[in-house]
Amino acid sequence: MFEYKAPLRDVRFVLDELLECDKHYQSLPGGDDITPELREAIFNEAAKFSEQVLAPIRRSGDEEGCTWHESGVTTPTGFSEAYDQYVEGGWPSLSMPTEFGGQGLPLSVDLVCGEFSGQANQAWAMYPGLSAGCRMTISAHGSDEQKQTYLPKMVSGLWTGTMCLTEPQCGSDLSFLKTRAAPNADGSYAITGTKIFISAGEHDMSENIVHLVLARTPDAPAGTKGISLFIVPKFNPTANGEAGERNQVNCGSLEHKMGIHANATCVMNFDGATGYLIGELNRGLHCMFTFMNTARIGTASQGMNHAEVALQGAMGYAHEREAGRSLTGVKAPERPADPLIVHPDVRRMLLTIRAFAEGGRAFAHYLAQLSDHEMRSEGDKQQQAADLLSFLTPIAKGFMTETGLEAANLGMQVYGGHGFIREWGMEQNVRDARIATLYEGTTGIQSLDLLGRKVMADAGQKYKELVEMIKWDCETMDDEFSGPLLEKLEEWQNLTTIVGEKAMANLDELGASAVDYMMYSGYVIFAWLWGRMGTIAKDKQAQESFYTMKLTTAQFYFSKILPRTLTHKACVEAGIASIMTMEDQDFRLY
Amino acid sequence: MFEYKAPLRDVRFVLDELLECDKHYQSLPGGDDITPELREAIFNEAAKFSEQVLAPIRRSGDEEGCTWHESGVTTPTGFSEAYDQYVEGGWPSLSMPTEFGGQGLPLSVDLVCGEFSGQANQAWAMYPGLSAGCRMTISAHGSDEQKQTYLPKMVSGLWTGTMCLTEPQCGSDLSFLKTRAAPNADGSYAITGTKIFISAGEHDMSENIVHLVLARTPDAPAGTKGISLFIVPKFNPTANGEAGERNQVNCGSLEHKMGIHANATCVMNFDGATGYLIGELNRGLHCMFTFMNTARIGTASQGMNHAEVALQGAMGYAHEREAGRSLTGVKAPERPADPLIVHPDVRRMLLTIRAFAEGGRAFAHYLAQLSDHEMRSEGDKQQQAADLLSFLTPIAKGFMTETGLEAANLGMQVYGGHGFIREWGMEQNVRDARIATLYEGTTGIQSLDLLGRKVMADAGQKYKELVEMIKWDCETMDDEFSGPLLEKLEEWQNLTTIVGEKAMANLDELGASAVDYMMYSGYVIFAWLWGRMGTIAKDKQAQESFYTMKLTTAQFYFSKILPRTLTHKACVEAGIASIMTMEDQDFRLY
Repeated sequence: MFEYKAPLRDVRFVLDELLECDKHYQSLPGGDDITPELREAIFNEAAKFSEQVLAPIRRSGDEEGCTWHESGVTTPTGFSEAYDQYVEGGWPSLSMPTEFGGQGLPLSVDLVCGEFSGQANQAWAMYPGLSAGCRMTISAHGSDEQKQTYLPKMVSGLWTGTMCLTEPQCGSDLSFLKTRAAPNADGSYAITGTKIFISAGEHDMSENIVHLVLARTPDAPAGTKGISLFIVPKFNPTANGEAGERNQVNCGSLEHKMGIHANATCVMNFDGATGYLIGELNRGLHCMFTFMNTARIGTASQGMNHAEVALQGAMGYAHEREAGRSLTGVKAPERPADPLIVHPDVRRMLLTIRAFAEGGRAFAHYLAQLSDHEMRSEGDKQQQAADLLSFLTPIAKGFMTETGLEAANLGMQVYGGHGFIREWGMEQNVRDARIATLYEGTTGIQSLDLLGRKVMADAGQKYKELVEMIKWDCETMDDEFSGPLLEKLEEWQNLTTIVGEKAMANLDELGASAVDYMMYSGYVIFAWLWGRMGTIAKDKQAQESFYTMKLTTAQFYFSKILPRTLTHKACVEAGIASIMTMEDQDFRLY
Repeated sequence: MFEYKAPLRDVRFVLDELLECDKHYQSLPGGDDITPELREAIFNEAAKFSEQVLAPIRRSGDEEGCTWHESGVTTPTGFSEAYDQYVEGGWPSLSMPTEFGGQGLPLSVDLVCGEFSGQANQAWAMYPGLSAGCRMTISAHGSDEQKQTYLPKMVSGLWTGTMCLTEPQCGSDLSFLKTRAAPNADGSYAITGTKIFISAGEHDMSENIVHLVLARTPDAPAGTKGISLFIVPKFNPTANGEAGERNQVNCGSLEHKMGIHANATCVMNFDGATGYLIGELNRGLHCMFTFMNTARIGTASQGMNHAEVALQGAMGYAHEREAGRSLTGVKAPERPADPLIVHPDVRRMLLTIRAFAEGGRAFAHYLAQLSDHEMRSEGDKQQQAADLLSFLTPIAKGFMTETGLEAANLGMQVYGGHGFIREWGMEQNVRDARIATLYEGTTGIQSLDLLGRKVMADAGQKYKELVEMIKWDCETMDDEFSGPLLEKLEEWQNLTTIVGEKAMANLDELGASAVDYMMYSGYVIFAWLWGRMGTIAKDKQAQESFYTMKLTTAQFYFSKILPRTLTHKACVEAGIASIMTMEDQDFRLY
């Protein structure tokens, strides 16, 4: 019942009006080629593919799920065919280097296409999504030979890839990872161990699957400093670069999950599989961070996607479904009851969803531009972009997945009891959204990363630069928004000082306040983006009702969402309070 | 992986120490019989039944679901057998009048048993739950003949019951209900129409199913004033009170849902089925409110149940699972990493879940005592209890289901990626919990009921009485809790005045602020209960670590949960803001 439409109008607003992407691309080496016409053509095609190929198999894929058998995993009906079309359309090559057959476009162009496919069909989009991270890691850390061997096939999309980190006994904490890598005589390694939660670990969509596997060599130092990264292909490449002999890596079973049923979440068994070291020995985590950072931004975007899906479903339903009469008098006398849209609480939910969907879009595409600079610019410009991106990544991942989940739940809530019924598509969105606050580092992990590693690490230097940048933006912002935002920036700085002081006395204070601090930060970042969007929309509201909607959402954000900072502030100020006073053994069931 | 244990210790605390249930029962006519020994025996048996019979078929029931076939619906393996044991144990008769074979105990005793069964297996517990509502409605509104015909069989549990309100075109708003009731020559009616979302509408657990059906007679006034209530049994009773001829009521199909898979959610087709008017003509909604109020309190308790299940799962996991080291130094040097319980953010989540589970228990059992007085006391005492119960019901239903859902999600979050996997049982809890904010009136509907019908209706008289009662309790409360609570009471009153004034100018202000106002009210009510529980625990903390845990949770509630009122207050103050400024047709997708 849910019909997906790619939100092209809002993407154009964010790219052209908010982020001035023409200026952005002109500032990138070789970016002159990214003309508005080229973008428009790509986005329209991506929209078509997502609407016409991916969206129709969204629900059937969820119902059918993946099937494990001795020889592999079968994806739901239509998934493999859709992937073939994706490869034929050249989509995997969009942002890859031309020397390996790529189209050499910046990553930010990719994100738009990734947004549409993720909204139309998250479970499907995860297959190419994991591949992209794998490709980028090989591109960043592989030897020339490894690049020559793997990238052409991965850029064309004929081969896909995965990341293999988690083991049954360790996920967030990789220090006691057990998978072993024993050196072979020919310089390769024999990889043995079990990895779990491997998304797209096995499937029937590509000729070969290239696994990036964290493992320990004999005598490696204990903890995370003894972990190396290995390429373990499902089929070992032949001399002429084709998929050759079967490697000893197998999918032992599929996990039974709450959602993303159509994505194969695999237990992967490595039984002396041939692996090839990528990057330096014992620097595996460093290499994997390339993957993980991309994955975190990808997961942040999923938060936006869940909000967008909720918005599209609930907005349609609110106009169709009739219930009750407006408290201020009948609004649709020709209908047996007024449509839901007349009720303030329904509008409140829709505006909340919209604020998270479109605020998330602005944030995600802003990050994509930073990523463009990190990958293509040089010197200070590159460093600044990399620093800012690194600072904002845990906020994006933590905040956007939490608010995406909230939005997905609100989207369901607008439907009343019907939201609980599978046919309407909203409950699938909630089930799919639920993984996003868990994988690629939970909300708690992101928050500790932000507070411990990003804010505190350099005595708050990067944090201060971010605040200065937002203050600078306030000068061109309408007073309606810059006034409250400047107050929040002041408050945010005080709060940061408070946490810092508390942490000096007791490091557990960081853990106790981390999530509240991260959420607070997210609301301020979104206020900055909504302030800028609201300012643009205010100037143009006479032109088109799109701008009225945008301005209204900005105003709603400031009056009804931003006050959530009050609670998070109070909780940060309360600090550790009663959290750590009890002994572990008394902290239990009775 | 999730093993249920009935929370007997906390039930005893709430009943004996917080609510002084001995005094309560002594104040009820005939209540002297409810001795501590009797209660203890009943609760222990109920715990055993829930732990040993219901919990083991919780997950299998979810996986297997119900099966529709031409002749009826088959419930999952073990469900029907468990129901037989329930009937043999005499559980359905607990609170029913002795004249129909009941045991005549107050409803509050029933709630404890209902709590355990609902926690062990929500989908199963809904079958007897719906029956109880049906029984009570017949008991309250049926003719003597109807009572004689239906109650003995329903009290024994051999016959079960349902409520049939919702139709495809109307749920929350019953004014355009279409099901018709045409008078037959013999005084019965021919009922024709389609009802949807009928929980326990058809199954294989009982000899007969007694439907309570809302329908319109010919020439009935339009809207809700033309709705009557009918008894429509699946099998028409014979003269000697047995299930006789099959009636023309059939389950057309089962809904495909997000959760509560093991409960049959039916589309029920009435094709000229024989029905019997219950209560007065056109007063059907009035009669059904008996059912709905019981159902709302039942659903509120489900919110507590979801929090309790989350607590039991996550608390165990936090001690077993290892990840990372405490920021303040290694805590479990003998283990490869520290258990999750050392991390402040994990404790924050556990304490939040506990605050909602145990706060919910206190609230639910308090409401049950009011309900005892409403049903058994007389005069002023009865009226006061009924008024207070009616006032608190929308807060209980709205607040406890919203916080129950939050707790269920946090319970899953503690598990990290494993929370998403079905085997751990936490994702089922989230899926089961998700219905609670939707059925029996959504959170939005409860909030409008509270603000429009309860707070504003009598110029705030009942509201003021409640505030006075809480203030009176503050006098015996430890200053640590009474201080902040008195401030909140003051603030709550101001907020109520603000909403009232805004609503005088524009009724849509009620809708715009209703959910924030309801949630604010819920946090204050829980502060009252936690203040009282914290005070008791503070006095006894030397006795047992149970009291330390209780006191810690109370302190946590005041420092880390109650600040949420700040946001809801700001949102109520912001009022309608930008919510209603746009035209309906501009409020859309772009």
